[in-house]
Amino acid sequence: MLKNAGGDPAISVADAVRNCDWVLSMLQNGQQVLELYGGANGVLECSPEHILCIDCSTIAPSEARAAHELAQQSGRKFIDAPVSGGTSGAELGTLSFLAGGDKALVELARPIFAAMGKKTLYAGPAGAGQSAKVCNNMLLAITMIGTSEAMALGEKLGLDSKTLTEIISSSSGRNWSLDTYNPVPGIMENVPSSKGYCGGFPTELMIKDLGLAIEASNECGANIPLGALATSLYRLWQNTGGAHLDFSSIFRLVSGVCEEQ
Amino acid sequence: MLKNAGGDPAISVADAVRNCDWVLSMLQNGQQVLELYGGANGVLECSPEHILCIDCSTIAPSEARAAHELAQQSGRKFIDAPVSGGTSGAELGTLSFLAGGDKALVELARPIFAAMGKKTLYAGPAGAGQSAKVCNNMLLAITMIGTSEAMALGEKLGLDSKTLTEIISSSSGRNWSLDTYNPVPGIMENVPSSKGYCGGFPTELMIKDLGLAIEASNECGANIPLGALATSLYRLWQNTGGAHLDFSSIFRLVSGVCEEQ
Amino acid sequence: MLKNAGGDPAISVADAVRNCDWVLSMLQNGQQVLELYGGANGVLECSPEHILCIDCSTIAPSEARAAHELAQQSGRKFIDAPVSGGTSGAELGTLSFLAGGDKALVELARPIFAAMGKKTLYAGPAGAGQSAKVCNNMLLAITMIGTSEAMALGEKLGLDSKTLTEIISSSSGRNWSLDTYNPVPGIMENVPSSKGYCGGFPTELMIKDLGLAIEASNECGANIPLGALATSLYRLWQNTGGAHLDFSSIFRLVSGVCEEQ
Amino acid sequence: MLKNAGGDPAISVADAVRNCDWVLSMLQNGQQVLELYGGANGVLECSPEHILCIDCSTIAPSEARAAHELAQQSGRKFIDAPVSGGTSGAELGTLSFLAGGDKALVELARPIFAAMGKKTLYAGPAGAGQSAKVCNNMLLAITMIGTSEAMALGEKLGLDSKTLTEIISSSSGRNWSLDTYNPVPGIMENVPSSKGYCGGFPTELMIKDLGLAIEASNECGANIPLGALATSLYRLWQNTGGAHLDFSSIFRLVSGVCEEQ
Repeated sequence: MLKNAGGDPAISVADAVRNCDWVLSMLQNGQQVLELYGGANGVLECSPEHILCIDCSTIAPSEARAAHELAQQSGRKFIDAPVSGGTSGAELGTLSFLAGGDKALVELARPIFAAMGKKTLYAGPAGAGQSAKVCNNMLLAITMIGTSEAMALGEKLGLDSKTLTEIISSSSGRNWSLDTYNPVPGIMENVPSSKGYCGGFPTELMIKDLGLAIEASNECGANIPLGALATSLYRLWQNTGGAHLDFSSIFRLVSGVCEEQ
Repeated sequence: MLKNAGGDPAISVADAVRNCDWVLSMLQNGQQVLELYGGANGVLECSPEHILCIDCSTIAPSEARAAHELAQQSGRKFIDAPVSGGTSGAELGTLSFLAGGDKALVELARPIFAAMGKKTLYAGPAGAGQSAKVCNNMLLAITMIGTSEAMALGEKLGLDSKTLTEIISSSSGRNWSLDTYNPVPGIMENVPSSKGYCGGFPTELMIKDLGLAIEASNECGANIPLGALATSLYRLWQNTGGAHLDFSSIFRLVSGVCEEQ
Repeated sequence: MLKNAGGDPAISVADAVRNCDWVLSMLQNGQQVLELYGGANGVLECSPEHILCIDCSTIAPSEARAAHELAQQSGRKFIDAPVSGGTSGAELGTLSFLAGGDKALVELARPIFAAMGKKTLYAGPAGAGQSAKVCNNMLLAITMIGTSEAMALGEKLGLDSKTLTEIISSSSGRNWSLDTYNPVPGIMENVPSSKGYCGGFPTELMIKDLGLAIEASNECGANIPLGALATSLYRLWQNTGGAHLDFSSIFRLVSGVCEEQ
Repeated sequence: MLKNAGGDPAISVADAVRNCDWVLSMLQNGQQVLELYGGANGVLECSPEHILCIDCSTIAPSEARAAHELAQQSGRKFIDAPVSGGTSGAELGTLSFLAGGDKALVELARPIFAAMGKKTLYAGPAGAGQSAKVCNNMLLAITMIGTSEAMALGEKLGLDSKTLTEIISSSSGRNWSLDTYNPVPGIMENVPSSKGYCGGFPTELMIKDLGLAIEASNECGANIPLGALATSLYRLWQNTGGAHLDFSSIFRLVSGVCEEQ
């Protein structure tokens, strides 16, 4: 597949990075990232010293900081740059990169990010990209459920959902989950809720990100009452039918229509 | 005071409405509204039959519907039109009216609303104005706490609050509480958080509105897990120092800085 | 059915109470109770003045107080005495009565309660029986979910459920939902969890009682964070398959086994 | 101090364990435990091969399993045995030990536990003692808040707190926090609530244990909605004055009396 797209697949990591100026990785968890870079025959060991390492995986801020440290110890440059924007963003080239690390390095990497996405946002020093993503996604998880509650309450009180969406969109309850990614089927075109909650960002991936938020807040002693409850609710939804649907399908759990589907 | 402003104070309700084409009321609770209109010597009894009654109080949707019914029985026209926009909105003339009742009547009343505020949003039939307000304010209560959690978590993870605000403002966690009314002191000018949480919309009024949301959801069987938890948190904050501060001061409770203040 | 059991069915309320020394009622909601007693041709109007009215319905404390007042105005004696103990308690004669009203009256009624149940607990003045029931059942709702969380967590951590039950039963987490009505199938005999969650106290009745707790706390300004969340969780479970099962089946929702059933 | 009590203080770990048949440790966190046993000049390196290691610290189940593994690799015997019962239990000799590891070993160690506490409960294989403690304490944290909510609601509804305690103690809401460690001042003698919430088990230690529950549930994918909310509430209370008070002082936060104190 990579070949068809013009890529040049490598047999081993060592092989792949030997003559590279930069490398970009995107893996499923922090352990994989730490092994890819720090492991035997890994990127740090086998790459030229001037290489720029860019990790776009979504992992814990503490794991990203550990990767930065490994890179620094071996004299390599490292950026953590998780993406925001979902599957559709990847296909449409509208991804955002939330970058953490040395600011000059991020400037250096801007053209690389620009080739793949729409925006590069500098979040701060080592791990800050991951920290910013964890904060954004926790808030997204909360506003999506909050929006679902407001819309379901409005419906039960007899309000028209389109009208309610318009009203709140121009009032203080306004948020992205309401005005751009509405969870109620039929309000907006081209969002998952109007396509049976297919595509988009699956509930189980949202749960992965919320797991990182729980872990991070537990480590640093931050208090996240709504974030923790949101996590519980997505987990309940994961176990009652929503695991593979877009996370906005939490509207079904909240509104109580899940059994009829 | 009313006289100084050019008004014409009346001795009794009966006196006040006897020759009016329309009347506008703004009271503290539903019982007061029902008494003002339906009580002995009240508006409905003493006003000319063509009068248009506009109630701008924030009361329960069910109470607003009861007021509509009383008006209908006496052959009078009624609109429920709670305002959105807080004290500053009232002073600056930027209030929004969320209007419920007969659509033609709301059109008729538009000039009256226009004289006092910026926008009139038609929400639907009798009580819909109140229902829309209850939904918006519950969502606002949630997004404010969610935003506070995300900002406090970011701070503890070492992020700069201004940078985090900018990043989330252009990402999927975007919402009014973050990009227009940021709860973290020093991020924005002219919002309560930068003025010691003075002015604005006090926590205890938010609790009043959330009480209406709890009541409405309990009556219609809607499920509001985050809304209910938000209510609990504002009540805890009310009892630990936040009653009279702007509701965005919930950031203090969430971030744990309340004891130091 | 009543006839078969030796009862004497009446054609109307008036008929039924005309020559009674006491009357006992058990209805579904407060409106029905207020109508039965205070309505036209109701108990208060048609009964002899010395009648003792005992209402065993589960209704709001405020509604019970309203019924007491109606009775007092008509010179009749009234006791609110909701029952605790579920369907099985009714069949086995092990019900408890939580009685509110004049203490001397409750003493007078003791033999009546004794004929039907095991215990009569005096809770306090008018409405106190309902208040005590609302407090007990809210706490029960919470401890049942808490117990389910602890048991499910233990299971996932590899603990044997019977062993964990024994350990907590002799430790500080001990509670009735754990040591007498365990929600995990197979731990105890003769409890709903070991009979497919059939019989017992259905989730939807627990939700009715929690609705009364929400209403009461909203009226008196009490803060019930866990009580409110428990209500949300039972409502989610009602909508995902648990409405008619015993309320201890919330263990299925919490442990995530609901989809496999 | 140890000398005065007849103990024999050692200069180093190596020194202390060189000729021991068993060693018992009680430290503050898992890292310390892993270092004590597995570190250079640690217990495993310096002790005779037949030594029995008993760790009574409260640490994460996964950390306890890691310690077991280290011991096994070095051919030493290990038991995890956190205690339950608080400071007063330690003084009065009424502690319980929740033991995990090889069953025969735990039997072997029974006399050692018996010399210090009242009960030894076998929880299961390696780490099970920690797992059982985490489950019990999370449930305790929940029932304490639930009990506080029920008692505070009852008070606001006009019930006498002693009467309500008696009623629920003989009903289905019954639990240890209510009938043995009541959080309302003046209900019971010799419990922290009647001594200004001094002594007992401080809020900040409960928060430590809840952090372990959050961590464990996050790792194994268990859903703990009430456990997570309870954690948030104790953290709020920690920041508003309750850090060093017994955890039953959460009653102050819930009932809203905290500001008056």
